[in-house]
Amino acid sequence: MVWSCNAGRTKVRTGVVVFSALKDQATVALPADTDYARRALLPAGLRDELPPEAEHRAHCIDTLLRSFAGEGYERVDPPLVEFEDSLLNGADASVAAQTFRLMDPVSQRMLAVRPDVTVQIARIATTRLGGRPRPLRLAYAGSVLRVRGDQLNPERQLTQVGAELIGPDLVTADVEVIRIAIEALRALGLKGLSVDLNLAPLVPAVLDQYGIHGDARSELRAALDRKDAAAVAALAGPAGETLAGLLAATGPARAALMLLTSLELPAAVAPYREKLKAIVQAILDEVPDIGLTLDPVEHRGFEYYTGVGFSLFATGVRGELGRGGRYGVTPMDDEPGQPATGVTLYLDAVMQAAPSAKPRKRLYLPLGTPATIAQWHRSEGWVTVAGLQIDHDPAAEAKRLNCRHVWISDAIVAL
Amino acid sequence: MVWSCNAGRTKVRTGVVVFSALKDQATVALPADTDYARRALLPAGLRDELPPEAEHRAHCIDTLLRSFAGEGYERVDPPLVEFEDSLLNGADASVAAQTFRLMDPVSQRMLAVRPDVTVQIARIATTRLGGRPRPLRLAYAGSVLRVRGDQLNPERQLTQVGAELIGPDLVTADVEVIRIAIEALRALGLKGLSVDLNLAPLVPAVLDQYGIHGDARSELRAALDRKDAAAVAALAGPAGETLAGLLAATGPARAALMLLTSLELPAAVAPYREKLKAIVQAILDEVPDIGLTLDPVEHRGFEYYTGVGFSLFATGVRGELGRGGRYGVTPMDDEPGQPATGVTLYLDAVMQAAPSAKPRKRLYLPLGTPATIAQWHRSEGWVTVAGLQIDHDPAAEAKRLNCRHVWISDAIVAL
Repeated sequence: MVWSCNAGRTKVRTGVVVFSALKDQATVALPADTDYARRALLPAGLRDELPPEAEHRAHCIDTLLRSFAGEGYERVDPPLVEFEDSLLNGADASVAAQTFRLMDPVSQRMLAVRPDVTVQIARIATTRLGGRPRPLRLAYAGSVLRVRGDQLNPERQLTQVGAELIGPDLVTADVEVIRIAIEALRALGLKGLSVDLNLAPLVPAVLDQYGIHGDARSELRAALDRKDAAAVAALAGPAGETLAGLLAATGPARAALMLLTSLELPAAVAPYREKLKAIVQAILDEVPDIGLTLDPVEHRGFEYYTGVGFSLFATGVRGELGRGGRYGVTPMDDEPGQPATGVTLYLDAVMQAAPSAKPRKRLYLPLGTPATIAQWHRSEGWVTVAGLQIDHDPAAEAKRLNCRHVWISDAIVAL
Repeated sequence: MVWSCNAGRTKVRTGVVVFSALKDQATVALPADTDYARRALLPAGLRDELPPEAEHRAHCIDTLLRSFAGEGYERVDPPLVEFEDSLLNGADASVAAQTFRLMDPVSQRMLAVRPDVTVQIARIATTRLGGRPRPLRLAYAGSVLRVRGDQLNPERQLTQVGAELIGPDLVTADVEVIRIAIEALRALGLKGLSVDLNLAPLVPAVLDQYGIHGDARSELRAALDRKDAAAVAALAGPAGETLAGLLAATGPARAALMLLTSLELPAAVAPYREKLKAIVQAILDEVPDIGLTLDPVEHRGFEYYTGVGFSLFATGVRGELGRGGRYGVTPMDDEPGQPATGVTLYLDAVMQAAPSAKPRKRLYLPLGTPATIAQWHRSEGWVTVAGLQIDHDPAAEAKRLNCRHVWISDAIVAL
């Protein structure tokens, strides 16, 4: 059987073939050996979301953005593609390699499909919304594409939901972003949430202070990344005591903060610690019922943060639910810098942790049921499923269509 | 000033420059003569959706899908990109030319960014959901990209929201799809809705019947498209009376249907008319309070429909709000065909016609306001905007942040 479908809605004529062996998700890339397989399969890392997961995704996005909106974060929606040079300007090589590109025949320039939405929000905040009062609170939800999945997550189309607070570099701003992320996740019913705080600029500042550069610096960073205290001691020379102290100040926040506080730090580095202490204290006060840990030597993926960064976790969920933190502004002229802080939630991880909404009850209405009956039940929260032809056995038809209730003789009959 | 932003969330480092002349939407493609202009501008036909429009879009999508869900249409969510040959298999040249393509380094095959979602839904219905009972009711919302905009709508990223009913070829199914489209649009507050019904296979069947082919057929179609009765009479020969009758049967449904009914049609063509009559009658019964018109010679954009097609309009809105109809299945072997009918709503047009939701009231909470006060007001529907530092004049700060209310001395003060 061949569909000569189109639904004419964009004048597409396609052929889609029933291929009953492929009724489940199949995302492996296959050699194009048969027409059947080719038409039913998707590229690796891309998939069709089916009922009820697609509904669950929409519910999660809606709930998170509703929560952000309640705190004054207004929604923006940048396009899926942009000029490559605006989207990737200054990006590392690794990001550029992860980005799909398109030739635009209209502008005769290269476009890129966004691998991340945050960069677009920063662009909007500083251009189109450059005149809005600060702090500027923005939220977004959108799909991003990357060329390759990774071990933890093979998906290549991901959904990001986030909030950005563009405004003063204040502890209250850092704390607000963490708080609203936790509240949004809780609005979805997530439990066992924890926040791991890091401070990516701290170690580089210490290494600068002790004049550690080149290979020695790289080796030391690798040892710190492995949390290898012995190697750190062997490599660090005069910085050894400080770095050992930072390495020890990892773990549950209260204890780690005490260790961090007792540490002697070079004067140039101490302000970072003060900021972190203030943020930890505020989170303990304002969001007391979460797990809070510190990892002051963590920096992987946080290289460009200029202050406190954080990762969000939930017990029982593999990987991060999201991450965020303070990012940087380098004033180049007389204009004042625009500091910002924000959070990106990884919806695919969040969805796995979020309890599914209870499925709505489905009521089968045999052909001829008055429209008012259908409307009334929908207004009461029912899903109504209309019969399209006269049934010999309406109850059997209802069951076949996954309805546990049927309208017979002016009443709902449970099946 | 240069952002060395990234928010590190995908390790992007970007440079975004404040460019105060570009605070509004600017979607023209510019020569890349300055860094400033390049970074702030988007390609022609792509744009940032800002507050409050982005919120309005989300509200419209949510309302439409909620309405479809109430009638048993379950959401599916296909990916933004697919293998080119599965997405465009059998597509016209015009669609293929409107489709952006990407090279996939993983599969070493070409991918295409979808120009339409309907084709994906047909693929899902016949493959992954091939085993679900029929009628199968599916709904979707998604962005599509096209290479070029058109005169009526320069946008190149569009949102489609739709519903598909895969199942028996019954009048009740055709009518259900039209009814749920109208109900969904009404749920958004749209008024003055009308439906224009067409029957794309009718004229070709008449022309076949009278053996009109080649150039004569093309000229006649062009004359019918122009509604040029004189040219039709001159060109149509023995088909003249029938085609003149079809041309006259255009306009408000009751009168047009009477003309159509009185028309003598070849026996092979009459069943199309009977189907149309049955659908018109059912719509007049079930959805009495809409404008209903017929245009039996219309076919542009409906070439691949196999039965009744329709366009949706609202008074005061330029262009269609959506279109749909019955599409075709050509059985090639012993498997039974799978007829389907559906509707695609063009969200960008729908949004213009839909009344905006009333903006929520914003309450400014000076620094130090207890969290319970904030939570309580949010639960009452307020948007709360938190002060990040101590204000000398909280009322002035509230106004600056677009809040008409401020929390002072344990009470809401209206400004």
